Amino acid sequence: MPNIFAVIMAGGVGSRFWPRSRERTPKQFLEILSSGTLLENTLGRIEPLVEKINTFIVTNKTQFESVIKLVPFLPKENILVEPFGRNTAPCIGLAASWIHRLDPDGLMIVLPSDHLVQNPEEFNRVLNTAMKVAVEKDALVTIGIKPSHPETGYGYIQIEDEDHDRNPYRSEGAYPVKTFAEKPNLETAERFLESGDFVWNSGMFVWKASTILKEIEVHVPDLHEQLQAVQASIGTPAYKQTLEQAYGLTRNISIDYGVMEKAGNVYVVKGDFGWSDVGSWDEVVRMTARDADGNSTRGKAILRGSTNNYVDAGNKIVAAIGVDDLIIIQTDDAVLVCKKGKSQEVKEIVDFIRRKQMNDYL
Amino acid sequence: MPNIFAVIMAGGVGSRFWPRSRERTPKQFLEILSSGTLLENTLGRIEPLVEKINTFIVTNKTQFESVIKLVPFLPKENILVEPFGRNTAPCIGLAASWIHRLDPDGLMIVLPSDHLVQNPEEFNRVLNTAMKVAVEKDALVTIGIKPSHPETGYGYIQIEDEDHDRNPYRSEGAYPVKTFAEKPNLETAERFLESGDFVWNSGMFVWKASTILKEIEVHVPDLHEQLQAVQASIGTPAYKQTLEQAYGLTRNISIDYGVMEKAGNVYVVKGDFGWSDVGSWDEVVRMTARDADGNSTRGKAILRGSTNNYVDAGNKIVAAIGVDDLIIIQTDDAVLVCKKGKSQEVKEIVDFIRRKQMNDYL
Repeated sequence: MPNIFAVIMAGGVGSRFWPRSRERTPKQFLEILSSGTLLENTLGRIEPLVEKINTFIVTNKTQFESVIKLVPFLPKENILVEPFGRNTAPCIGLAASWIHRLDPDGLMIVLPSDHLVQNPEEFNRVLNTAMKVAVEKDALVTIGIKPSHPETGYGYIQIEDEDHDRNPYRSEGAYPVKTFAEKPNLETAERFLESGDFVWNSGMFVWKASTILKEIEVHVPDLHEQLQAVQASIGTPAYKQTLEQAYGLTRNISIDYGVMEKAGNVYVVKGDFGWSDVGSWDEVVRMTARDADGNSTRGKAILRGSTNNYVDAGNKIVAAIGVDDLIIIQTDDAVLVCKKGKSQEVKEIVDFIRRKQMNDYL
Repeated sequence: MPNIFAVIMAGGVGSRFWPRSRERTPKQFLEILSSGTLLENTLGRIEPLVEKINTFIVTNKTQFESVIKLVPFLPKENILVEPFGRNTAPCIGLAASWIHRLDPDGLMIVLPSDHLVQNPEEFNRVLNTAMKVAVEKDALVTIGIKPSHPETGYGYIQIEDEDHDRNPYRSEGAYPVKTFAEKPNLETAERFLESGDFVWNSGMFVWKASTILKEIEVHVPDLHEQLQAVQASIGTPAYKQTLEQAYGLTRNISIDYGVMEKAGNVYVVKGDFGWSDVGSWDEVVRMTARDADGNSTRGKAILRGSTNNYVDAGNKIVAAIGVDDLIIIQTDDAVLVCKKGKSQEVKEIVDFIRRKQMNDYL
């Protein structure tokens, strides 16, 4: 097995958890559904697989200080700072360039920093399978999630399972990918679920640095050109300026759209490890235990004649009287009161705050 | 006309406006439905009638500092501090004792500090009538409010209007009192309203200090005994200890129950001056203008798909999504989310906080 590297993508701006998530402390810096932040938990999960010196975090200028504070145990040079966000393809390309320079045969595990995994043992089993396939097949391997319901908020991946006998990884849940599907409507999502050969696209990947760079060269050649310049400048005084220039010339493009959907040798490993991308307060509510009245509370919350609420009092106190089906989130300087099922609109609130330049609340 | 004195009763603990009202800053110290606090507005209203040197405030130890800060223009010795609350009879008796010592013929206007009056000119006309009756008839005069709806939260006063021609004050709205009625049920309140001869008991009074002290002597002789000891000690080093002792020996008793309901020579002046005792958040909501969606907001409030809410963001920000008929009150350390019509239960929240000894929030 070659050296194993991890790349944690921690640059998300995440306005969906306002008022707890802010520009400097987006979702990955919050303790959501767990003790410890989602970023810390992500790092904790891969600790058995990846040495700290081989663990990279990609973030941005705004969040750099928050990252450093949270992971003082990582080498500072392993915190890669993007000059600005350009979606996942440049982010992954940048990390691959660093890793390729350290070890051309290096294997990369690419993980979002803000997902929830409730069964880390199964998660690591899946990663081990993915690494085996990535090495043995020189493949791009993606992690798919066994769907539990016809979710319309995720992309889907269709597995190729007709040629059973020629897939040696079938017993471990790894399959060639037939196709990637965008976020479906409900009808299509229901069809996907019934068919049994679709999984959710989790945005987690495993591959050799050399393999992904080669595929970027084929499918996103302009990005590859910029990455080569960046790679050549690593460790030189020109690095920062080269990186700024490269990102200035780079398109906003996702690794799915730019590479995965076009590449040939793509595998998916099917996982079922209590995964959630924790995309909204409603998702948090769904995953939280309730008391006999259907309420979930965090901190000092006094509820009277109230049912089916989710109340996070922060460091202060919340009192509720005669209310039902509300999500109430209190922070030091703000409170959100949101009807259950409406939390996707939280980002509109943040957009409004941005437009009104009420910057203290961003 | 004798010297006119004012007695502002400002010792209420008022838990009904939590989280804005607290032990140290009850309702009378809040800016509710107006600029300036209710206490300041009460003082402002009587300014044309009563000299500052003749204006007394009765409060308690907890609120003494808040009062001093708010009314630096009053002589400090005019702020009377009760050792502890014993309802309105001892409070009024104490003030009457001070005033009687300054001027045995002095006329007293007794006012709660936390009521709202929207038409101060009419209010002052009513007070002038009340003073005239109090002097000419040596009577106990109470201010009654023309009822606008069958309110069950107030006591009522029945006027005596059969003997028209023998009431010289009738054109000015003053009548002998027939009887006092406790807070009625809805059916009774509706009957009161229809009859036309019931008014709301506002808890505002006008009388000579000598008259009320005489009536206290007749109807609450034990209190009168204590008040005499207190009056004798005013201006001496023994005052504070005498007062403590007097209050220790005094029953909790209201002026209505102790004196008004038993005395003979009681008049009521009927007023219609936009009065409210502002007894709950719902009452505030009722008296506040709304926008096209039925919402009222104070401070930084962002409402989305929400109707008929009352939102007070305090010094911070409130966002609401998809919610209706809520009262949302944010302060520095707390938030209340209360269904409209349920705000009478706010005091149960405060009781709970007291029982749990979460004293920071009292």
